[in-house]
Amino acid sequence: MKLAENVLAGTRIAIARAITKIENEHEDAPELMRLLYPHTGKAQVIGITGPPGAGKSTLTDKLAKEFRRRGKTVGIIAVDPISPFSGGAILGDRIRMLDLTLDPGVFMRSMGTRGSLGGLSRATGNAVKILDAAGMDIIIVETVGVGQSEVDIVKAADTVVVVLVPGLGDDIQAIKAGILEIADVFNINKADHEGVERLNIEIAMMLDLNVEKPAWRPPVLRTVAAENAGISALADTIDKHMTYLRESGQLTARRTARARFEILELLQETVRQHILGLVQEEETFEHLVTQAAERKTDPYTVVQTLLAPILE
Amino acid sequence: MKLAENVLAGTRIAIARAITKIENEHEDAPELMRLLYPHTGKAQVIGITGPPGAGKSTLTDKLAKEFRRRGKTVGIIAVDPISPFSGGAILGDRIRMLDLTLDPGVFMRSMGTRGSLGGLSRATGNAVKILDAAGMDIIIVETVGVGQSEVDIVKAADTVVVVLVPGLGDDIQAIKAGILEIADVFNINKADHEGVERLNIEIAMMLDLNVEKPAWRPPVLRTVAAENAGISALADTIDKHMTYLRESGQLTARRTARARFEILELLQETVRQHILGLVQEEETFEHLVTQAAERKTDPYTVVQTLLAPILE
Repeated sequence: MKLAENVLAGTRIAIARAITKIENEHEDAPELMRLLYPHTGKAQVIGITGPPGAGKSTLTDKLAKEFRRRGKTVGIIAVDPISPFSGGAILGDRIRMLDLTLDPGVFMRSMGTRGSLGGLSRATGNAVKILDAAGMDIIIVETVGVGQSEVDIVKAADTVVVVLVPGLGDDIQAIKAGILEIADVFNINKADHEGVERLNIEIAMMLDLNVEKPAWRPPVLRTVAAENAGISALADTIDKHMTYLRESGQLTARRTARARFEILELLQETVRQHILGLVQEEETFEHLVTQAAERKTDPYTVVQTLLAPILE
Repeated sequence: MKLAENVLAGTRIAIARAITKIENEHEDAPELMRLLYPHTGKAQVIGITGPPGAGKSTLTDKLAKEFRRRGKTVGIIAVDPISPFSGGAILGDRIRMLDLTLDPGVFMRSMGTRGSLGGLSRATGNAVKILDAAGMDIIIVETVGVGQSEVDIVKAADTVVVVLVPGLGDDIQAIKAGILEIADVFNINKADHEGVERLNIEIAMMLDLNVEKPAWRPPVLRTVAAENAGISALADTIDKHMTYLRESGQLTARRTARARFEILELLQETVRQHILGLVQEEETFEHLVTQAAERKTDPYTVVQTLLAPILE
């Protein structure tokens, strides 16, 4: 396949076209990913996540520039899972730093939800692999999110940076509890705002609640991304985490877990489409739906009826 | 089943136990839901959603009290989809209005994610049915959320109230674009804050963008929930929407769509568990995962290998 070859050669237009194909679930997409997959696993993948308003885009842009200064090529995938109906990425409309997009060592792409969240996390995982196969040294996946969505999305990352800001309300506390377990590094952005010490203490307290002492305790860093303050230290810490992953054997463990997750996801999706196709072709399907809506039967009985002939 | 009978009799302890069973996916849960299902469809289900910090809990509590004043019994399900790892509902730890929880005409329950978001939206849908079968007149499903999660959760509602507050940042604009399509009623809470007129105009402009003129244009209401201001008008509007649904035939259409959604969800889940069980029992499974992690094969080839013997 010519497209796969051009992606492997690092051609920008090919990378863009390849990502579009996997986003649209084009019929060539499985073959494309099958060809690229053996060439993946070389890039260092960084996940950036946190609540809305934490300044993740600015942080991502500054971090990308820092890695460029260090001689690395950088791919950026900005994921917007919060817009289920807009049919495209709102982030894509945003003007990102122009000097970054003009740099041939940077490839930047936004992705939004088209359909299911499962579809988005699969598409993101594949976009990471395309950039990886294309030879990017660093891939940053930035996602706005406060739930399961970004948890699945950042599963593609070696290092997850959770970005928080001082002075957000009580709901944010709940978010923090949820993302504690996925954070490899905490980064307090807008660290020139009031409340930074309190937030730092809160994070430390949460980390102390963890009874098992992990080999890697997520460090808590501070940045003022808009002023480029603390970015270099953040990049150092991310690299330190990568070294820890490599030396502890955790990198192999994580990548095996990711391969297992991807296989099971793909398996489910394949089976789902197969069975949904079979069932919805059934003449009785819409009749059974109406019966259930009228409470003349129930979903459990309907599913049993539909599946009995399929699952022996 | 004694538990189902007691739920139908409206016994509080039975309702609580039934919800716990469906939350834990107890082996009795399908049978319980099958028995209760024919007795559902009577309650008026209201979904309350919106970004963190919009004051949804206070609004829900005040709205519940308003419906109690109107002689209705009220079930409240407070859903917290943003905490995938805490293993329980953070909202449950919050002290809700004590006078509400002491009222025998109110049943209040919090639910958090245990495992998948799909699991949570299924559990929420079932909890609504339990309260419905138990004879609650009004069921309010309150969910913190900014993404696909709350879209799926509020699918259980007849009327979706989207709560917004003035003066939130740019990310919130993105959220609004996402929830526009699910809103039956917009409610600007904290309407004594600055920026209320601007927000109202923004919502109206978004509604005007809709080229097809809907039969029901979502009205934009204002409340100061903490001071109980505007709550009665909100309850009136919700009832007006319910009347519209009934008279236009939309209620039947929505409930048929919901039955279809529930059947397809249950079908997928059943098939998923069946196939995952078969596949993970395969001796070669972990070997194939390792091969993929080492890039000696790829997920697409693995899935083909695993499914070939199962799907004819």
